[in-house]
Amino acid sequence: MAAGQEDVKLLGVVGSPFVCRVQIALKLKGIEYKFVEENLANKSDLLLKSNPVHKKVPVFIHNEKPIAESLVIVEYIDETWKNNPILPSEPYHRALARFWSKFIDDKVFGAAWKSVFTLDEKEREKNVEESLEALQFLENELKDNKFFGGEEFGLVDIAAIFIAFWIPIFQEIAGLQIFTSEKFPKLYKWSQEFMSHPVVKEVLPPRDPLFCLLQARYESLSASK
Amino acid sequence: MAAGQEDVKLLGVVGSPFVCRVQIALKLKGIEYKFVEENLANKSDLLLKSNPVHKKVPVFIHNEKPIAESLVIVEYIDETWKNNPILPSEPYHRALARFWSKFIDDKVFGAAWKSVFTLDEKEREKNVEESLEALQFLENELKDNKFFGGEEFGLVDIAAIFIAFWIPIFQEIAGLQIFTSEKFPKLYKWSQEFMSHPVVKEVLPPRDPLFCLLQARYESLSASK
Repeated sequence: MAAGQEDVKLLGVVGSPFVCRVQIALKLKGIEYKFVEENLANKSDLLLKSNPVHKKVPVFIHNEKPIAESLVIVEYIDETWKNNPILPSEPYHRALARFWSKFIDDKVFGAAWKSVFTLDEKEREKNVEESLEALQFLENELKDNKFFGGEEFGLVDIAAIFIAFWIPIFQEIAGLQIFTSEKFPKLYKWSQEFMSHPVVKEVLPPRDPLFCLLQARYESLSASK
Repeated sequence: MAAGQEDVKLLGVVGSPFVCRVQIALKLKGIEYKFVEENLANKSDLLLKSNPVHKKVPVFIHNEKPIAESLVIVEYIDETWKNNPILPSEPYHRALARFWSKFIDDKVFGAAWKSVFTLDEKEREKNVEESLEALQFLENELKDNKFFGGEEFGLVDIAAIFIAFWIPIFQEIAGLQIFTSEKFPKLYKWSQEFMSHPVVKEVLPPRDPLFCLLQARYESLSASK
């Protein structure tokens, strides 16, 4: 590789919210990269070698150095390419951004997933409740800001793409009402604003095939009841 | 508060590995702070107000601004007080440090806890296996370094204090062999080195009361079988 030339690869699958986070960060920074589509039923040697611990996407490979875990990758991108900052510059606000992104991973993702993809009715109800409670915290945290990052979107917005794009698909499939404009007006307005941002719009996966894929999964789960 | 004066508080309990992480970071940086002992059966208003989301310790309060989540706090401390760095300076190594600390939280803590504090025998066995698998990754990652951070300890070492100090107590209580010098010679050597570091030695909780507390918990669980 010639000096100064960047070799940037993203191992991913279309339709993953975690891969999408990295794509938003890369697009925001204007970084050219090669998207290497993985087949999760038959993972590539490159994926297994690059992420031997979790064997999952996304994996980001910069000049042959691999990094896993979407939020770790996004922070790496922000520290390596300084334009269009993703994290705030001030330590306290950086800490809050890290706190809320971790909150989304710990409290929103699993609960929302299990609100749909679980067989047990009680378990489902519990997870719907937990999802609602977690979203309420985010509704409050957003206050009257355009983005969690303020006037520009940042780490928490990127982490929360799952809420804006994936949860509405989930709830439509399962006939649930979790994330609605009535329940969470500020968060809903944020989601519309964020998804229509040129950077985000361009990297969101096509909705219909993802909907069909998740619906098929939901129906096969329901059929096994 | 007079200009330039720092108001630094840590809400915690003695015997928590997560609180201990923050104490190691503070000690390493030489920061004076007030330790506010919480009663988890009757949480203080300050705790509930400072961490309304999780209502858990540790909470770090710097000039009246609260931060929760131990690893978020440690990064904040490192960004605010620059002496004796905890994270490496180079972005790739920072990413690896974040990856492995997250790994410890996601893959080691829960599995090790459930290896002891679970009723179901199959569940226990599964968790012992998962603990062993996770520790093997750390054994390999340590290579022949003194610390995960290299010659000086860093974020991953601080995150891993749970392995050095708490897991040996856990396994003694339950009569298990998870983290032993035979199984993980490098990690075991690291644990001895890390715990005898003057900074760490000074903030580790007294072993005997913690042992008794956890033993009582284990026995009450066993009695309920």
